[in-house]
Parts: sequence; structure tokens; C-alpha cells
Amino acid sequence: MRAAFYHGNRSIQVGHCPAQPPAPGQVQLRVSHCGICGTDLHLFHGNMDHRVTFPQVIGHESSATIEALGDGVVNWAIGDRVTVRPLDPCGQCAACRRGHSHVCLKLKFIGIDAPGAMQGLWTVPAHTLHRLPAGLSLHDASLVEPIAVACHDVRLGEVVNGEFAVVIGGGPIGALVALVAQHKGARVILTEINPFRIRLLQSLGLEVYDPRTTDIPALVQAETKEAGADVVFEVSGAAAGAELMTKLPGVRGRVVMVAVFPKPVPVDLHKFFWREMRLIGTRVYEPQDFDEAIRLLAETQVPFRRLITGVYPLDGLEKGLLEMEQGADVMKILIDCAT
Amino acid sequence: MRAAFYHGNRSIQVGHCPAQPPAPGQVQLRVSHCGICGTDLHLFHGNMDHRVTFPQVIGHESSATIEALGDGVVNWAIGDRVTVRPLDPCGQCAACRRGHSHVCLKLKFIGIDAPGAMQGLWTVPAHTLHRLPAGLSLHDASLVEPIAVACHDVRLGEVVNGEFAVVIGGGPIGALVALVAQHKGARVILTEINPFRIRLLQSLGLEVYDPRTTDIPALVQAETKEAGADVVFEVSGAAAGAELMTKLPGVRGRVVMVAVFPKPVPVDLHKFFWREMRLIGTRVYEPQDFDEAIRLLAETQVPFRRLITGVYPLDGLEKGLLEMEQGADVMKILIDCAT
Repeated sequence: MRAAFYHGNRSIQVGHCPAQPPAPGQVQLRVSHCGICGTDLHLFHGNMDHRVTFPQVIGHESSATIEALGDGVVNWAIGDRVTVRPLDPCGQCAACRRGHSHVCLKLKFIGIDAPGAMQGLWTVPAHTLHRLPAGLSLHDASLVEPIAVACHDVRLGEVVNGEFAVVIGGGPIGALVALVAQHKGARVILTEINPFRIRLLQSLGLEVYDPRTTDIPALVQAETKEAGADVVFEVSGAAAGAELMTKLPGVRGRVVMVAVFPKPVPVDLHKFFWREMRLIGTRVYEPQDFDEAIRLLAETQVPFRRLITGVYPLDGLEKGLLEMEQGADVMKILIDCAT
Repeated sequence: MRAAFYHGNRSIQVGHCPAQPPAPGQVQLRVSHCGICGTDLHLFHGNMDHRVTFPQVIGHESSATIEALGDGVVNWAIGDRVTVRPLDPCGQCAACRRGHSHVCLKLKFIGIDAPGAMQGLWTVPAHTLHRLPAGLSLHDASLVEPIAVACHDVRLGEVVNGEFAVVIGGGPIGALVALVAQHKGARVILTEINPFRIRLLQSLGLEVYDPRTTDIPALVQAETKEAGADVVFEVSGAAAGAELMTKLPGVRGRVVMVAVFPKPVPVDLHKFFWREMRLIGTRVYEPQDFDEAIRLLAETQVPFRRLITGVYPLDGLEKGLLEMEQGADVMKILIDCAT
């Protein structure tokens, strides 16, 4: 079977990969689709080379059907349609012992620390599987993983009906956070600078502003009658986002830290003190977030699918990564792993 | 009667002050003692001149007896022994409407925005009063206000029995936070650089380390068996404290922002993401924190009183401020306002 390998040094090559028979507790999956994530772009840039075994099959936003079962796997059958929660925790560390295994201190993230989904046949632990409902296509179901990120962010951000939310950064995760928060009943304002993304997000009915041409703090003050935002999601990972995030919340407002900031940036800590604001770090997801993401995708009219701007064959992975890098007219790109 | 006036430009002068008869809803107090706060030092340095009406009587850590009652004041009698929660909120703003009047958007802090306690007779709104129990001396009761700050910090930090806490900065507020957190059942480690303060805090049975000679992250890792601290209180207001605070908590750990950071400082936001940590801003106190502070001071053996290193007459306010500024061998200085 074929797989897309990351060889380091900005190089992706598609080649033959021997199928891995499932060990006890594992399942072998026939991968249908796999979305390209910003994390894959970080990988492509070499930022995670210390975690990778070369050549590495990447990808973690998957949909699949079960091809074979390892010994001891119960509750699953060949042909079942699934998505994978790509976390393999140690079960022993302080985080696992306290029930936070999704942020295990020795977490293996499947698709970085172990082979990922950009291949025809993929072997994973059975504990990572979530069942897909009959009405949900495998094409669409590759969105479950990033929607689960958004569900986790919105849940930990404690968004409730009637609140005023601002999402800083309108890439795929920011867009999904906005859609999930809006579905919870919040009024959502999104900031983004890429014109293609702005138009796409506006076409979904989202309120999007370019922070270079709109005074976002003044807008939020006016729209909330000086109360400030209830919750702000920082999804940009940019120093300008870290500066903006403290200017928007009102008293006891929350800032949800979704983005990855590779190094320390200036933060106005005085605002946290003065308004008794909170900063809430959120990372990946827990099983209930996957369940919620599947439910939202299968049972609601939230226009998640419209974020998909292209479906490329395995050979198109490098092209997709380069388009993302260049800020081209793309939002979420899927790889059809059967091609 | 006499009062200590701040005239701006690092000048304190004691002089005559006409007593202010209480208006409806107000009481006139005969002030007993008033502690000097770090905020008074900020005032002395001119950092709050934009909020001050010159010449300004400062001071807000008070104990007193009621001297006269304005019209409409019920539940209080002449001679009652009290302390003052020095907050005068507007009652109208978004924060007040949501029940957070202690961080009212137009808050008058009595002792900065209105005349303070460093005078013989002081007139304040009756809604600011808390009754002192019979066994608590007026000398000791001037500690209630800073203890209430610590009670608020520990309450919002959600400290529970058995947790591991680190307090960065062992001045009066850091010391009080440490004592209150320890009383809640936490194991507390305190960091401080001033040798006099280190010795004083150690004499109270606190675990104190100089972060210049002890590797605090390594210590916390070792003492928590790699789990990290449950809660960290940043009370130093120093860039080094903002750097240290993110290195100590474990997964889902909390950082309580107690200190005033006058300008943005570098913060490692990645740690908040990676460990799903939280930053909790806390400011002043709510009525229940005053009630708790009075209870802790009156009914427990927590050695709050031993933080008092001197009692000066009104004429000694400037001397006390200069000693604090110079890092002299002082912790909490009280002013005897009857002298």
C-alpha cells in the first residue's frame, strides 16, 4: 500500500509502505480521508523533528473503516466506520493519575510520535476509536478531530447561551471554535487578516473583521455597552493576538489559550489583575469532545463542511502544505488516502 | 485633629485637618491604627497622582471606633469597634450589575480616590464597615484588610487541603497568602530575596527559599514527585516572578495573579496551553473575605500579628515609607493614628 512520508528537510515523498498487522489491542484501519492540520505544517517546517522517527507517516484528522482486529479487541467489527482520537497516554504519570490523560506527561500523539493516517492501511490502538453514525460520510467525518478541538476549547471556556465571544484568528481551528461557540448561543466576532478566509467565513454568516482596519477593542466596547467580551479565544499564535486578547474581556472575562506560542511574548498581566480575568489553557480533547463533535457534525446544520476547500490525492500532500504555508486560497484541505 | 497628608512629589506632611461631620449614610470614625501598604508606597512614588486630590490623606488598613452616625445609618452605634472595607462602588456599571462591585468599573478606593484613614477622625460610608469581635484588639485589627486580600486570593485560587502551593514574593501580602493557604491545609513554599524577610518568615515556621540560590522549579518537581505545584501565587510583580510562575504548576495547575505589573512582561503562554494551566486574576476583596479575615485573626492561632515590625506615630509615616522603599528590616508597619 501507499503512504506519504515526511523525510525531514521540507520533503514529503509518497511510496510503498508495508501494512502493519494489528497486535493485541490494536485495529488495522483502511483510511478514507485525512485532513491536513496546522500541526502537519509545523512538522513540515522541521519544528517537531526531535519527536519524529524518519521517515514518518504523518496525519491525524482521519476517517476510516476497520480492516482487521487484533486479539482482545471487543465491541468492534470489521467494516465498522470510525474516526481516531490520536492520543496514546502512558496511564502512569501524574496527569494520567489525576484523570487528565489527554495531556499525559508522556503523551504519544499519533501522527507525530507514532505513524499517522496518511496511508492506505493504518494500525492504531482500539482505545482511540470513535464510531461514526450511519448518516455521516467518511469524507465529512475527517472533520471530527478538529471539531473536537473546538468543542474542547468552548467547553473549557465555559461558553453559555447569550454570551459575547471573540475569536482571534480565523484559520480552520478559529473558524470551528466560532461555529461551535455560536451553536452554544454566543454572539461571536472573529478577527482574521487573510482576505480569502474573511470572505469564506462571512459566507458562512460569521461576523469577521480585519484587526488592521477595524478597532476591535472599540467595536467590542460598543457592541457590549462597555461590559467587554465574556470570552476571548486566542487562536492566532501571534504577538499581536496576545496583545489584543487582554484588551477585550470585561470583568471576570475569560481568555482561552488555544494557540501555540513557540516563545514568551509580552502579556499585559495587569489587565488580568484589574478585571479579575482568567486565562484558560486548552489542549487537544477528551473523549466527550469527540462524541460532541460527531453529534454536531451528524445532527446539526452548522456549516462545518463548507470549510473544506479541496480534496487532494496522497500525492497532493506537499502541494497542500505549500499552499497553507503561502497563505493561498485554502482553508481545510483533505487528503483522499485511497488514491 | 491631625492628619498625614500626601502633597505629591514624595512629600508627606502632618497637619491640622477639619473633622468632616457624617452625611446621611455615613459614619464618623475615631481611627485607632492604620497599616502602611505597598499601595501607599506607590502613591508616595507619584504613580497614582492622577487619582489623587491634593493634599490627600492616605491609608486604608484601618481599625476604629464609631464616633458619630449620619442620618439613616442603622445597625451601628457610637462606640462600636470596626474595620473598614475601603471600596465605594458605583452600583450602576456592568461589573456592579453582575455582582462584582468590588471591581466596579468606576470604583472609588477610599484612601486613594477619597480621603484615607491616616487621621484622627475619618468619615466613611456605613456600608464599608465590618464589626470587630470583643476579643480582637484595635492594634491587631488593622491587619484585617491585608488578610482579607489574602483570603480573596486563596479563595479565588481554590486552594484545598493537601495541595502544594508556591508563593512568589514574601512581602506582607505574600506572607499573608502563605499563612492563609497553609491554614487551608496546603503545603506552602515561599520565595523571597530580602534576608530580613526570609528570617522573619522562617521564624513563623514557613518554608522560605531565595530563588537566586535555590533552583525553585527543581525543588518543586522533587517535592511533588514530578506532579508540579497545584497553585502558584505571583505576588512579586517582578519580571523574574512572571518567568518563574509558569515553570512550577503541573497539569491543570493554577497561577493566581496577585501582583501589580505596571507594564507587559514576557509570559510563556505555551506552558498554559501545554499543561492546560489557568491564570486567575484577583483584586482586593469581597465582604465574605473580610468576614473570613476577621474570623482567622480572632479565632485561630495563625501568627499574623508577628508580621508587625513596628508601630509609629502619624509623624512616622514618611519614615516608614522610606524604610519600605529602602528594603530595610521591616515587614508590616502600623501607624498609631491617635498620636
